[in-house]
Amino acid sequence: MPATATDPGTSRIRSWWGWGYADAQPDDAECAALGALLPGTLARPLPIPRVADLTIGPPGVTVPSALAHLVTADPRARAAHAMGKAYRDVIRALRGRPGRIPDLVGRPTCDREVADLLDWAGGHGVAVVPFGGGSSVVGGVEYRGDAHRAVLSLDLTAMDRVLEIDTAARSARIQAGALGPVLEEQLRPHGLTLRHFPQSFEFSTLGGWLATRAGGHYATVHTRIDDFVQSLRVVTPAGAGTSRRLPASGAGPSPDRFFLGSEGTLGVITEAWMRLQERPRWKAATSVAFADFHRALDAVRAIAQSDLAPANCRLLDPGEALLSGASHDGSAVLVLGFESATGPVDGRLAAAVDLACAHGGRRAVPEAGGDRPSEAAVGAWRSAFLRMPYLRDGLARMGAVVETFETAATWGGIPALIDAVRTEVGAAALKATGHPATINCRLTHVYPDGAAPYFTVAVAGRPGDELEVWDDIKAVVTDILHRHGATITHHHAVGRDHRPGYDLQRPEPFALALRAAKHALDPRGILNPGVLID
Amino acid sequence: MPATATDPGTSRIRSWWGWGYADAQPDDAECAALGALLPGTLARPLPIPRVADLTIGPPGVTVPSALAHLVTADPRARAAHAMGKAYRDVIRALRGRPGRIPDLVGRPTCDREVADLLDWAGGHGVAVVPFGGGSSVVGGVEYRGDAHRAVLSLDLTAMDRVLEIDTAARSARIQAGALGPVLEEQLRPHGLTLRHFPQSFEFSTLGGWLATRAGGHYATVHTRIDDFVQSLRVVTPAGAGTSRRLPASGAGPSPDRFFLGSEGTLGVITEAWMRLQERPRWKAATSVAFADFHRALDAVRAIAQSDLAPANCRLLDPGEALLSGASHDGSAVLVLGFESATGPVDGRLAAAVDLACAHGGRRAVPEAGGDRPSEAAVGAWRSAFLRMPYLRDGLARMGAVVETFETAATWGGIPALIDAVRTEVGAAALKATGHPATINCRLTHVYPDGAAPYFTVAVAGRPGDELEVWDDIKAVVTDILHRHGATITHHHAVGRDHRPGYDLQRPEPFALALRAAKHALDPRGILNPGVLID
Repeated sequence: MPATATDPGTSRIRSWWGWGYADAQPDDAECAALGALLPGTLARPLPIPRVADLTIGPPGVTVPSALAHLVTADPRARAAHAMGKAYRDVIRALRGRPGRIPDLVGRPTCDREVADLLDWAGGHGVAVVPFGGGSSVVGGVEYRGDAHRAVLSLDLTAMDRVLEIDTAARSARIQAGALGPVLEEQLRPHGLTLRHFPQSFEFSTLGGWLATRAGGHYATVHTRIDDFVQSLRVVTPAGAGTSRRLPASGAGPSPDRFFLGSEGTLGVITEAWMRLQERPRWKAATSVAFADFHRALDAVRAIAQSDLAPANCRLLDPGEALLSGASHDGSAVLVLGFESATGPVDGRLAAAVDLACAHGGRRAVPEAGGDRPSEAAVGAWRSAFLRMPYLRDGLARMGAVVETFETAATWGGIPALIDAVRTEVGAAALKATGHPATINCRLTHVYPDGAAPYFTVAVAGRPGDELEVWDDIKAVVTDILHRHGATITHHHAVGRDHRPGYDLQRPEPFALALRAAKHALDPRGILNPGVLID
Repeated sequence: MPATATDPGTSRIRSWWGWGYADAQPDDAECAALGALLPGTLARPLPIPRVADLTIGPPGVTVPSALAHLVTADPRARAAHAMGKAYRDVIRALRGRPGRIPDLVGRPTCDREVADLLDWAGGHGVAVVPFGGGSSVVGGVEYRGDAHRAVLSLDLTAMDRVLEIDTAARSARIQAGALGPVLEEQLRPHGLTLRHFPQSFEFSTLGGWLATRAGGHYATVHTRIDDFVQSLRVVTPAGAGTSRRLPASGAGPSPDRFFLGSEGTLGVITEAWMRLQERPRWKAATSVAFADFHRALDAVRAIAQSDLAPANCRLLDPGEALLSGASHDGSAVLVLGFESATGPVDGRLAAAVDLACAHGGRRAVPEAGGDRPSEAAVGAWRSAFLRMPYLRDGLARMGAVVETFETAATWGGIPALIDAVRTEVGAAALKATGHPATINCRLTHVYPDGAAPYFTVAVAGRPGDELEVWDDIKAVVTDILHRHGATITHHHAVGRDHRPGYDLQRPEPFALALRAAKHALDPRGILNPGVLID
């Protein structure tokens, strides 16, 4: 089988070590310009790492000839499956200290082949790390430790077809290995869309979204992929099964909800019936500026507690708004968007803007001779959003430490939580590096009872010790989230990096249940060892 | 401790054997009038059963003196906890063949006492059946078999307080034993409401709703109590735990979703933080009549796939519409209701009516000199809805067999499913009794991808063999639902009566996980034995 150097449907080459497409990465000059924004970064960027410089030995295991066509030991494929795309992963690649390189990369094309590979791995003490688009930012797709004889990265992207469409029920049976654009392209001729657009949309798969309970397009109501699942098919070492295709059911605990978020530890999700949307025909968007971030929080709460249900309701703090070009005067900016396939949405947008203005928001005013600034702000923010992970890699090449993390908490705790992150993470970063950190915050999803803040922390690192600085910052973050009763992750998942926080937050009866289920479904402990549970 | 003869906040006496309040049960004359509607029923009603006529021996077990104040062996309390309120339960009481009477009824007042009773029961081979309002219609709150030395019915209704309210996050910490009216009364002074109004509202508890994943007030979007759970506290034989209070989280599989629907088999839910609503200030309702039920289904699908989100969207087939007084001309009737605490809803109602009329619906037209028939239809239906279970008991006293069951399926399968129920259940009922059955259907909840039909079957029984007739009908129903890919239950739960259908539908990997979790949390197998899993 070929190594996956290019994406289906494009001829663009994916970076083996950094975010996205290799040709979209910032060049040296752009890296230097980024570095200039953070005092104390390197004088010139670290060189782009090369697979040829890695020490990649022969695989520690071989598969029987009947399975040989399903795996590759190609060094580039193995390197590209060694880690996800967290800052930690990027810096490890840049510093020539990547995680353990998998012995083999498997690319099954059907459930039977997934089961065959699991059977073989179980019989030979080989760890299996399910791998979709590989965009994990929490250490979810690598192997750590040495308890297993060898490691197989199980790449699902050869299973990328929309197998069936039910237009009456607006749903489709989709293989788990389909990347975002690949599945949307197959739905488009039917006038339907999954409308799940995480920042990683181009580089992540349906199966990855399901296994990590990804956060999606909608800022309110159905914010998470979970709500769009009609049925799941899961292949486990103990056998495969498919849940019944149902709009809803009250028959026992939801089987699907147990596998959603299981992060490859209980089984491999191979396909799902997903609920789709009609493409929206009416859209309206604007932005509202706030001089006072705390009043902006009140405005967002009022909108989240109304029944207006905006598709987008993203509050940018002044730093985030400045960085993305959404404001230049120190304002916080609320980006509001409504959409519908049923009818006009201007009334809902107007009502939301009214609510925002009642809490101190300033309506966008058209400027003479230019774009309407509100639309410009929306556009600026969206471009910056998609470009952000590439810029992070550029900053990493300048020796900066960059961490993005997200959480959720009830409304009462949000202001103190954000303040604590600014104060305590800022102090920790300063202490660890001697440099001041930039800390920005936005709300990505909002709920009647709380919100999901997303933080970006950037600071010049200690050259060569970037991982140690990151560890220090992450420990402080984990402690803050725990003390404030916030979740260790709203939609990035747990992986290996969030284990300490997850272990603190998981109720003990559920931990007992999960361990018992893991033992029943994966008795040899081969599936994504170290993630969620030991 | 006293037996619970009366409800908190009322002086009305609950029936020990039938639905609801004893003083609301149909009298003999009303029973006879009901029986006259079904050819072949008895000439006079079966007498109301008396506790004194039951053989209730001394309890087969005693608790240590430290726990004595938490339990009662009072015969009336034990009789009232022997079964739920299914037709099966009512007819067993009427025929003097009730289920196994529990040896003791426990009424803990706090988590510690729940844990103490579980510890004691585990150490003495005593089965524990968690009991909320006792309104199960699926055999969920009784004990069957003789594998345990004794049976403790664990009545949670002494734990009925709203413990904390967070108005910013519009949520409350509520003890699981609070009956619907009891918790709403405590929320009302704060201008908040849980707005969960199942048919059993007066006679069921928060804990029961959570343990059975009850269907609630909203016909669309958030139809199920699950979506309103912020955090759960669960006491299991292996220890207690509380999930973190979060508006959303992506940290592993949802711990709450695993205990929701566990029907008392994995632990006892003792309290929950619940998401609340503001009381709606704007409401609008109407009804639309359809000459053709299949076109009405299309209309409802169009509304469910819009973003109008009606709070009520209940389609009554002609028989159901006639029975409830919503129509008298053989029309099917769609009852539509909108509500909001944010702003007027007339526009959404008008848009929904337009959609309905585009699919053959007839707008309600005000009649000269009378109520607007649309509002009359809405009111008629609501009164009939609350009265229905009492009438079922009246029919049972006339020797009729009455079964209500509900399911859900994707839109494509709905017409054939409804036709199959009419045809096959009708034939089975005729064969079993020699009498024609009345079979009515309504849609109670609707989804973009499907709907939840609710069926009522009534037929004159074979005197003395009502249970056998019911068994025959239930077997046919289970088979139909399975063949049509529908769920065995949308919101009535599995209990013991739906086990055969549930076992057919549960995916095997989840069955393995559930069994393992059960063994870990309830190693002695004392919790609600026979429900969900063995």
